[in-house]
Amino acid sequence: MARAEFWYEFASTYSYPAAMRVEALAAARGVEVVWRPFLLGPLFAQAGWRDSPFNIYPVKGRYMWRDMERICASLGLPLTRPNPFPQNSLLAARVAASLDNDLCAQFTKAVYHAEFAEGSTISDRAVLGSLLAACGLDAEAAFAAAEGAENKATLKTGVERALGLGLPGSPCLVMEDGEVFWGNDRLEQGLDWALGKR
Amino acid sequence: MARAEFWYEFASTYSYPAAMRVEALAAARGVEVVWRPFLLGPLFAQAGWRDSPFNIYPVKGRYMWRDMERICASLGLPLTRPNPFPQNSLLAARVAASLDNDLCAQFTKAVYHAEFAEGSTISDRAVLGSLLAACGLDAEAAFAAAEGAENKATLKTGVERALGLGLPGSPCLVMEDGEVFWGNDRLEQGLDWALGKR
Repeated sequence: MARAEFWYEFASTYSYPAAMRVEALAAARGVEVVWRPFLLGPLFAQAGWRDSPFNIYPVKGRYMWRDMERICASLGLPLTRPNPFPQNSLLAARVAASLDNDLCAQFTKAVYHAEFAEGSTISDRAVLGSLLAACGLDAEAAFAAAEGAENKATLKTGVERALGLGLPGSPCLVMEDGEVFWGNDRLEQGLDWALGKR
Repeated sequence: MARAEFWYEFASTYSYPAAMRVEALAAARGVEVVWRPFLLGPLFAQAGWRDSPFNIYPVKGRYMWRDMERICASLGLPLTRPNPFPQNSLLAARVAASLDNDLCAQFTKAVYHAEFAEGSTISDRAVLGSLLAACGLDAEAAFAAAEGAENKATLKTGVERALGLGLPGSPCLVMEDGEVFWGNDRLEQGLDWALGKR
């Protein structure tokens, strides 16, 4: 079965509709999705950014929010601007990195919904704990695993791989041949590529 | 007839496939395209950039060139990297701003082809002169009109309008209701919007 890695940062706006769309698009093509949580911070630091470029460059920020409104409206997805934006995503990313692929997918979509549909604070342990419980997991045990040394190293290795792959942002689809497709609007093209369609 | 403005900078990479695609997409929908040459320099200056962000941020640059290779291959468009990149586009933009809409479209596509398919230097008067001649125009008369005070003011006004519209880059489609769609990959969505399709 063809596989594609879906790389995402929880604080990233365009990753929200992408996370909600990718499974159906992949299933329709018979492509397996491997969920790869990572952190944009180290990638942004490489570019000299200590904040979201959508905050640093207000013209791009204003365009992005309007674009997100159109995208979410067309998909029937609610959209609330997180406050603050961007959200601190470290704990959510650690939890996601500790889960097996199916649970990671379920938890990831729950986090994006809480963040961008409900406006919840995803750095809040109570918020993530209730999402974990809704996934059928013991929240305290999940946090303990997420914050263990082994899992912290797993996430760190993932971020280093993202840097090595040259990911320009989030979300990205990464193919087994190393091809990278950046953006919610490239999911279809990336999944077609996974099937050998150019 | 519904209208959409196509705003573009000659040095912009993604504007090349967009300029080659926009007329057929618009004609298929019965939308009129108004060609709007402008300059990204003043927009980039607002963001603090004195070079193309694709040069300032190498990770984004590498991704963009690979993305352009895929896009141009899928459209059957030749692609050569301009040297230097970005090209100085001031003279080409002045010429384009001086032409009526149909000639502007013809000249614009010829410039993009010279720049990105043939690797020609578009700041070179001889290069632009031969493109003007191929459009059936007297090159010297066209340059004189392009570099007259009135036309320089026309281009300057256009750039100020681009700043006022909050264009985040090039290319953009701008609707009569002020909606902005940024990128070669948003042409279809923008032209659908022009028809009232949301």
